[in-house]
Order: sequence, then structure tokens, then C-alpha cells
Amino acid sequence: MSGGATTIIISQFIFNIALLLIAARIAGDITSKYLKQPAVLGELIAGVIIGPYALGSFLNSPLILNFGEVAFEQVAQAIPGAHATVVHFTLIDVISMLAVIILLFYAGVETDVKKFIKYGPSAGLVAIGGVVFSFAFGYFLTQWMYPQGGQVAALFMGAVLTATSVGITVRVLMDIGKLDTPEGVTILGAAVIDDVIGIIILALVLSIAAGGGEGGIELAGLVKLGATAFIFWFAIVAIGIKFGGLISKYVLGMFDDLYAKAIIALLIGFIIAYVSTFVELHPVIGAYAAGLMFSATADKEVITKHLHGIYAFLVPLFFVSMGMQVDLFQLKDLPMVYGTLLVLLSFVSKIFGCAIFALPAGFNTRGAVRVGLGMMPRGEVGLIVAGMGLLEGAIDQPMYVAAVMVSLLSTLATPPLLKPFFEKGGSGLKSET
Amino acid sequence: MSGGATTIIISQFIFNIALLLIAARIAGDITSKYLKQPAVLGELIAGVIIGPYALGSFLNSPLILNFGEVAFEQVAQAIPGAHATVVHFTLIDVISMLAVIILLFYAGVETDVKKFIKYGPSAGLVAIGGVVFSFAFGYFLTQWMYPQGGQVAALFMGAVLTATSVGITVRVLMDIGKLDTPEGVTILGAAVIDDVIGIIILALVLSIAAGGGEGGIELAGLVKLGATAFIFWFAIVAIGIKFGGLISKYVLGMFDDLYAKAIIALLIGFIIAYVSTFVELHPVIGAYAAGLMFSATADKEVITKHLHGIYAFLVPLFFVSMGMQVDLFQLKDLPMVYGTLLVLLSFVSKIFGCAIFALPAGFNTRGAVRVGLGMMPRGEVGLIVAGMGLLEGAIDQPMYVAAVMVSLLSTLATPPLLKPFFEKGGSGLKSET
Repeated sequence: MSGGATTIIISQFIFNIALLLIAARIAGDITSKYLKQPAVLGELIAGVIIGPYALGSFLNSPLILNFGEVAFEQVAQAIPGAHATVVHFTLIDVISMLAVIILLFYAGVETDVKKFIKYGPSAGLVAIGGVVFSFAFGYFLTQWMYPQGGQVAALFMGAVLTATSVGITVRVLMDIGKLDTPEGVTILGAAVIDDVIGIIILALVLSIAAGGGEGGIELAGLVKLGATAFIFWFAIVAIGIKFGGLISKYVLGMFDDLYAKAIIALLIGFIIAYVSTFVELHPVIGAYAAGLMFSATADKEVITKHLHGIYAFLVPLFFVSMGMQVDLFQLKDLPMVYGTLLVLLSFVSKIFGCAIFALPAGFNTRGAVRVGLGMMPRGEVGLIVAGMGLLEGAIDQPMYVAAVMVSLLSTLATPPLLKPFFEKGGSGLKSET
Repeated sequence: MSGGATTIIISQFIFNIALLLIAARIAGDITSKYLKQPAVLGELIAGVIIGPYALGSFLNSPLILNFGEVAFEQVAQAIPGAHATVVHFTLIDVISMLAVIILLFYAGVETDVKKFIKYGPSAGLVAIGGVVFSFAFGYFLTQWMYPQGGQVAALFMGAVLTATSVGITVRVLMDIGKLDTPEGVTILGAAVIDDVIGIIILALVLSIAAGGGEGGIELAGLVKLGATAFIFWFAIVAIGIKFGGLISKYVLGMFDDLYAKAIIALLIGFIIAYVSTFVELHPVIGAYAAGLMFSATADKEVITKHLHGIYAFLVPLFFVSMGMQVDLFQLKDLPMVYGTLLVLLSFVSKIFGCAIFALPAGFNTRGAVRVGLGMMPRGEVGLIVAGMGLLEGAIDQPMYVAAVMVSLLSTLATPPLLKPFFEKGGSGLKSET
């Protein structure tokens, strides 16, 4: 017996998830197998095609190929007068957030903490170069060519251009067998540091978007916010590196079953993701730190291996749901010149910014350009930033479409550019030329 | 950067899931490792302890250790006058339904279809035996000991006792590796038939409750309702058996990745679960049919192996959330003699009713009792029927509490009874004794 309206609605939602994930699988398979591009590109495009602005609009169903918005009444507990606020969000948001937390946790576990520390200083230079140029180009271009978005929107577009996708970078370098080169390791380290810097930038931009409307932004407050988040984040990672062995032994060691070990690690990731919101960090950033915590432990392989099924099941949903938010009809509202320049500058800013900072770090011109190219893809990180901006109402639909274009095109362009640059010529190190 | 209220709420929900699943893991581990009981019992008890009526009540948080109710506005699409209904459900319901659909799909894949068909007639007998005795005991006990409820109330209590929630039994049998025994497949088959009979009984009782008179029931309509559900279910299984090889070759064969194959199979299960609700079947019954579809294919092992992580991650949530619905303080409102007798009869009716009908189906006493015990838990199905009775005003609050107790205690008692009965002694078949 189907048993009432609740069962029907939840069944519809589960049916919807099935449609999204099947579309993601098929599209991901086509792009990776036949177009030789990252599967994530296909997942995004699948979302655009079946989403509420395309196929979904023909269905006239709130849940199927649409978002399924729900209202949640939250009672403010501190106030005795039973003050209540109603928050609206979509059911897909819930699973989508779960998916991106799992993604970042997984990425954290896969990161080599020892390399992260060893190549920290030189990779840090590269990361800073990329961040400074990308942010400046994104910010000033938007201020100049899209002033109707306002100050906060320009900051957001700077943050979008700042993003670097660790996963895509690593995957491309592994595909061409160049992960172990000096350039490869530097790119990996810089991408990790870039991610952390990106978080701070996003934290700052979001706090401006949320509270900065009252005329002036307090620099002291921002510094404190950034410092608190930064210290908290590094404290988690430091605790992880210091006590990861103990956590592994006494917490995960409680369970004999390898799936149980991996799942408990992930659930600890969920908890840290939540606790991170107390210091204004986005939950995915906490999840990433939690992943790093376990990356140095003996359980690293156990965790990645036994979480792979959950990862493969849920993670594509994040990318489909990101794609679903793209309303291509909004492209007509996007000034063509601004959009084209933004995409071009997103290429130039990372290649140039990272490359000139890679030169003093010991690379020759060839090596520096390789590093710059490797830092180019914005991937899912750019989409996260853009998605946050849209969610917070800081950027409008046309700008979101432009940001998605930046993420897509910078990701798409990386493999065909990176491959010949790595295969032509010899060493990229100054000392070897 | 944690930013918007949506991010905070969803993070809280994900934190909540982490708490529930960690509690489930620890409690499940204690019960299985130290108390030698099925893990599912620990998961249920964990839910009771940390749920909104115990630990959760101290937190005063709508989401953490509580259900997090949301409102969903569904527009009736057929009616031009923009008729809208608001449906309330909890966020845990969503993940919980996902979990139990995965559980039954998984059980379906693990079932030996040939055995399932072989024991189909036995399952039919067992289901009928359980239904007849449960309905009669519930109806007459209520007529006798709680006559103030009236005729309709007695019918509802009969329907509550008729319900079967197969999730617990499936979990226990899977945990102890007895799902594929003659008793196991008989229980699952009987549960499917039981669901179809349950539809008819609920429709009958609801139409009496609504129409108020015995003259208003269309027998032809009820027969049609049951027949449609029955035929639909068998059609899915038959299609699966007939064309499973083709589905495996041309649908799952599209994907090289083994995780992708398994996930696509599961997603097809989600779709069939949803479609089942069109003929009033509970989605889990459809998910089981979908699982059976794949059980005869060459991908059977690939599917179970590569879905195991997802199963291990999500399935415990269903049982914790069932435990969370237990409000032990309601016991004080329970009419003691009537309540105690009803609970006892709920045990006896299924064990005895199913067992004596299992004897002519080829089981010896040992096998018959195993089957009867497996059919005992009312679980969430009993709660749904009782909830509808309360909603319709057919049963009063004390009766509802009694019905909740039946659902709870029959569910809680099953794991510790089932395990020893399956592990002690040999074959349950008459031919083998």
C-alpha cells in the first residue's frame, strides 16, 4: 500500500533523483568515452538539458526535473517570544550538499599531506600569483563592463576566477602521466593552497554580501574573520596530522568492517563540516580538512576504496544540480563582450599570474607556462563559488551563466593545451636548462 | 562564508544524519559483537534513545536529534483553479525512504528468482494465513474489549494487525546469511502478497470509515484495485526474468565501469519503485521487484558487490528513524489489559496464522515457525495504517497508542527471536526431516 501523500511525494523525489543521475551517467560517459573530456562536463550539460529551464519546464511538476522547494520553519530558540522564520530551500539542495561534502572529503583523503607540506613554499608562490591576477582581472573587468551588478557582484566574479579545481588538474596530469614531474607536484601543491586561499576569499566576499550592506566594511572584522577561519582550518588539519594515527587506531579501530571504518571517517567529516560553519567556513571546506585529517593515516586506502561506491553514486548529483541552475535563455541578457572577455581573462590570469611567480621558484619559461596551464581549470570549485553567489543573491542569472562558461571553458581547454606543452621540450627546471 | 540560512539548515541536517548513523553504527556493533544480536536491533534502540522523545527532547532544536518537518506545496495540476495542498513531512523521511528502497532492491538482487517462483504458492498460503488470523484477532479483540470505539475502529485495528513490514526481517536474514533459504524466499513472497492484500483491506476500511455505511462499498472496485496491483507487480518480475539478460546486455552493458553498472541498476529500481505507486503499491514492493529483475542476470554479483558501500552507508538510517518514532511516554495512556492483549495477539496471530498455513506448503514445524516469526514485524506499515485511522477519526488516541505499541514491539521482538530460530536446528522443509 502506497500510504498517503508523503509516500507519493518522496517517491516522486526519488524518481527525480534517478532521472538526474541516469542522465548524468549517460552524458558523463559520452563526454569521457567519445569526446575524451572530463565526465563532469557531461554531467553539467545533462543538468542544463533536463533542468527546469529546458526539459523540466514542459513537465509542469514541482518535483520531477524541477527543484521541489520546501519550507522549513525555524524557531529562534534564544528569543522567548516564539519568534519563527521560514526558510525555503529545495530538496535537491539537501542531497546536493551531501554530495559536495562527500566530494571534498574524498579529495582531502586523496591529498598527499607530506607533499602538501614539502612543496608548500614554492607552490605557495604560484598559488598567490594566480590568485592575485585572477581576482584583480575578474573584479576590475566586472566593475568596468558590468557595473549594474554592484560591488559585491564584482568581488564574486573575482572569487570565481580565483578558483582552481584540484580534481580536474590532478586527473589531467595523471592521464598524460606527468603527475610526478616537478611541474606536476608544484601544480598539485599550488592547487591545494589555492583552494585554501580561495576559501578565505570566498569567506570574505560572502561576509561582505551578507553583512556589508551598511555602508562600510570593517577591516578589523574581516581580518579577524579570515584569521579565525584560517586558524580553525589549519588547527583541524594540524590535529589530523598530529593525532590522525590515534583517531585511526582508537576511533576507526573500533570497527572491524572496512566499510564501517570508511563510513565512520566520512561521518566525522560531516560533523567537522557542520562545526566549520560556527567559524563562518563553508561546510565543504571543513569536509576537506577532515579528509586531510585521514589522508596521513594508515586508513587512507581503506577509506578511499570503501567510499568509492558512495562517491560514484552521489557526487554526480552535485554537478547535475549545478547544471540545472543554468538558464541558457539568460545568455541573451549577458553582454557578449563582457562574457567573452571574462572567459579570455580567466585563461590569461592563471597562465600569466602563476607563470611569473613560478619563475623565481626555480622554473624556466617552459616549466612556468606548464604550471600556469595546469592551474587554469576552475571546474567544480568555480561552480561552487558561482552557485553560492547565486544562492546568496549576490550575482544575477546572466553573471551566473558567465561564471559557468568560465568554469566550463577553462576546464575544457586545459587537456588539449596541457598535453602538447608537457610533451614538447625537455625539463621545466631552470637548473636543468 | 557559511553564509545563508539554507546552508546552515542543510549542514544541521547533515550533522544530524552523522549523529544518527554514528549512534546506529556503535549500537549495531555492540548488539552484534557483544550481545550476539542482529545489528538492526541496536539501530532501532539507538533511534529510541537519541530520538525526539528522549535525548532529542532536551536539545530544543527542530533538526538535531529531531525530525525537521518541512512543508511542501503541491499544486493539483489537473484542476484549472490552481488548487494547492500543503503536505508536511520530515527531512529524515526522505533519506529513510531512500534507505528502505535500497534495502529492498538489494534484497531483490540477492534473491534466487527460481527459488522465489518455486515457493510462490507457499508464500501465497502463508500470506493468507497471516492476514486472516491477524485481521480476525484485531477486529474481535477490539469489538470485545474496546467496544466504545465502534465497528469502524475495530476494522482499523484489524488492518493494523494485518500489516507486514518486511524490512526488519530482510535485514536480519541478510545479516545472518539466510535470505536465500526456502523460509527466506517464502517470507519475502508472502510480504509482497501481503502488501497487495493490505491495499484492499485499507481501501475497504477507509471506504467504510468515509462512507459510514456498509452499503457503499463496491466489491468490483476493490477486486480491480487488488488485481491491478498484483498483475503489475508480476508483470515487472516477468519482464525482468524474460528480458533481464537484454537489460543487462544493452542497458548496463553501455557502461564499462562496474560501479556505474550497479548504480544504473539501482536507479532503475528507483524508477520502478515510483511507478509502483501508480497502482497503489508501496514503493519498497516495487523496488523489490526491480531487484528480482536483476537477480537472474549475469550482473547479479557486480550489482551487490558495488552497491555494498551505499547500502552500508544509508540503510541503517531507516532503522534509526523507525526507532526515533518511539515515544515510550505514550505507554501511560495505553489501556493496560486491552493494550497488552493486542500486542500479544499481534505476535500470536502472525506466528500462528502464517505457521499453520506454512505446514501444508511443505514446511516442518521448525520451518513454519521461522516463517511465522519473519512475518511478525508491523513496522512503519502498521504505523501508516494507524496514522490514517487517527487522521480519519476512526480510532481514538488510546487505540492509536495501542497500535503504535503493536508496531514497535512486534518490530523490536523480531530480531532476537528470528536469529536463534534460524541458527538452531537444520532444515525447515518437511521433505528434509
